[in-house]
Amino acid sequence: MATAAIDAARILAGGDLPGLIVVNDAGKPLLVLPGTQVLRLAVPSYCQDDPTLARVIDEAAADVFFRELDGRTVQECLPDEPKEPPVVDGRATALEMAALMARTRSPLVAVTNPDGTLAGVVTMHALLDRILGDGA
Amino acid sequence: MATAAIDAARILAGGDLPGLIVVNDAGKPLLVLPGTQVLRLAVPSYCQDDPTLARVIDEAAADVFFRELDGRTVQECLPDEPKEPPVVDGRATALEMAALMARTRSPLVAVTNPDGTLAGVVTMHALLDRILGDGA
Repeated sequence: MATAAIDAARILAGGDLPGLIVVNDAGKPLLVLPGTQVLRLAVPSYCQDDPTLARVIDEAAADVFFRELDGRTVQECLPDEPKEPPVVDGRATALEMAALMARTRSPLVAVTNPDGTLAGVVTMHALLDRILGDGA
Repeated sequence: MATAAIDAARILAGGDLPGLIVVNDAGKPLLVLPGTQVLRLAVPSYCQDDPTLARVIDEAAADVFFRELDGRTVQECLPDEPKEPPVVDGRATALEMAALMARTRSPLVAVTNPDGTLAGVVTMHALLDRILGDGA
């Protein structure tokens, strides 16, 4: 949770992810950080109140983002009511992960190692691609 | 809304999209269809009630999806409380779209033509990539 907010934004941008799984100090999945929540910290609040105001800002969006996120941590991006991530172990089938995403309305599930630490993340997009992508 | 649900799932899978914008007969954006909502139709409900049950199904996920979605339309995938899509026109700046995503907590915005018909969709991922991706 002490990860810099700007690094979280970069991971979202580079990783084709709808959100991030935040882990605790022991490496166990703690909660889901939706990507739009990072945007809430990156965009000045007066622009969020009236998005058309953003049009008159004579500054590159990247500069605004870097200034707003400077020195902030993931901790500050957390939603008021954080959602516990849907979690599966390494034996989960594609259908099981799809069922969990459908049930929790989460576009990503955390995959854990036997000791409960985070092994990886499966996104809805990757899952659908795997299920329907090949020859479908 | 008469689009086949299986085609919606394929577009989600192939298009790297967190959801779809559903348009009315006049081509104007009507609502957002979150990807997880399509999964709710694709996965048998007893699996959603207990995702671990999915593990014992001796059938490929793709076969289950095709059977469940067969003959269904996007209309049937719509959430109980559909969300109106955030909409911008072609003059919107990157910061304006980010502000709108932050405000509406939507990972996609609809871009419209001057006549109000849908011109395209910008995803949070594409936007972050554009803002932070180059040399950031």
